[in-house]
Amino acid sequence: MTTTASEARQRYREGLVAPTSGAAGGFTQANLVVLPADWAFDMLLFGQRNPKPVPLLDVTDPGATTTALAEGSDLRTDLPRYRVWRDGELVEEPTEVTHLWRDDLVAFLIGCSFSFERALLDAGVPVRNIEQGRNVSMYRTDVDCRPAGRLSGPLVVSMRPVPASLVPLAVQVTARMPQVHGAPVHVGSPESLGIADLSQPDFGEAVEMQPGDVPVFWACGVTPQAALMASRPPFAITHAPGHMFITDVADAFYLEP
Amino acid sequence: MTTTASEARQRYREGLVAPTSGAAGGFTQANLVVLPADWAFDMLLFGQRNPKPVPLLDVTDPGATTTALAEGSDLRTDLPRYRVWRDGELVEEPTEVTHLWRDDLVAFLIGCSFSFERALLDAGVPVRNIEQGRNVSMYRTDVDCRPAGRLSGPLVVSMRPVPASLVPLAVQVTARMPQVHGAPVHVGSPESLGIADLSQPDFGEAVEMQPGDVPVFWACGVTPQAALMASRPPFAITHAPGHMFITDVADAFYLEP
Repeated sequence: MTTTASEARQRYREGLVAPTSGAAGGFTQANLVVLPADWAFDMLLFGQRNPKPVPLLDVTDPGATTTALAEGSDLRTDLPRYRVWRDGELVEEPTEVTHLWRDDLVAFLIGCSFSFERALLDAGVPVRNIEQGRNVSMYRTDVDCRPAGRLSGPLVVSMRPVPASLVPLAVQVTARMPQVHGAPVHVGSPESLGIADLSQPDFGEAVEMQPGDVPVFWACGVTPQAALMASRPPFAITHAPGHMFITDVADAFYLEP
Repeated sequence: MTTTASEARQRYREGLVAPTSGAAGGFTQANLVVLPADWAFDMLLFGQRNPKPVPLLDVTDPGATTTALAEGSDLRTDLPRYRVWRDGELVEEPTEVTHLWRDDLVAFLIGCSFSFERALLDAGVPVRNIEQGRNVSMYRTDVDCRPAGRLSGPLVVSMRPVPASLVPLAVQVTARMPQVHGAPVHVGSPESLGIADLSQPDFGEAVEMQPGDVPVFWACGVTPQAALMASRPPFAITHAPGHMFITDVADAFYLEP
């Protein structure tokens, strides 16, 4: 039985806590960042200036609790787990945030690489983190994002080992999905991104390279969380890693011709 | 002799007043909207929510006079002609706006269909407005943009007559350039956009259909000007129609794979 997006959201709303990987297949999942209106311009500009790591799928009106990406959804309850940040420090990981919601909060829904992993598999490109049952490896780089107002921080990338002969195909497939991070930012040469040791990711888990694999790096939706940690707004809510918001939008919608 | 973008900007800065169509071929031209910081969040959100008519190529920091799209440029002098708006009314069309610039102004550089007209010609699709030496025909539609804060207004479209057999090619070519309005929003049937008479455009000039031509409609960069007229911010500066900002970015940069 396939689960629809609204059924999946309903279960999380009713208390299910689990990573969303593989839930409601074919529906686009999104990273969540929620900030007070006073910081919303900076975040919107940060997304506009850094579209590869921060592809904005929707931005809500201040105080709104739902998004145009999912009718009837409630952003306060429909993710399985949240993170609450004060002055850039993680203070809590609750399973709903109704008690924390305020009239001045603006929510940012940001594209997620889950959408293109499915497209890679469909094209015959193996996705090692899925094969190995692990979270994808993510790294802080020494590349700075273009700052916006008070927000700045490093580009965070996810890495997927890709067989050398399939690297061009992996580039082509993901290039067609610019709203979910798009083409890789880098192929090979982790050291030129300031990554000393691929086996020591900053976020997620280490994923093993197979013989003949090349490390391919995509801009990652953890980038805005890294900017929050670096820039310390007084208050923010995000999704917890791997516990995304499931939209009603089909992944295919974000496929460019 | 080809003119570079910086040479063209220099001439306008020194006083040349002329439409920019055909100037500095191969370099991306941009629509300009400048608003006080108080309105900048609404405009940025309007662009985020309406990416086809308002594809944001760059947004400046408050008070900045240059853009990352063109090093050494001066947004106050480098367009051949500007429009100044007060409370949604056009009050002046000066050739530079140095005397009007303020520390709280934010500039929005917005993609322009000049980029895709060149791509259409290169692909063998005739561009009737260029053939006829006229400005493209533009129409207010009865389709509303998605509002953002205080900004709302109708979708404005440009129309180009395309030979029926070349309509699919015209769609394919422009779909590859989402940052300069992308694929058409509508093919044929002007009445279903609320356009009663193609020979009476709301902006630009009437362009004659040739036998076998079909009207093809693209989202248009005049849309934000229509929103300014409808939403009446106290102060705004825009480019004058056809008198665009010439960036240092090659048109090919905005071509998706």
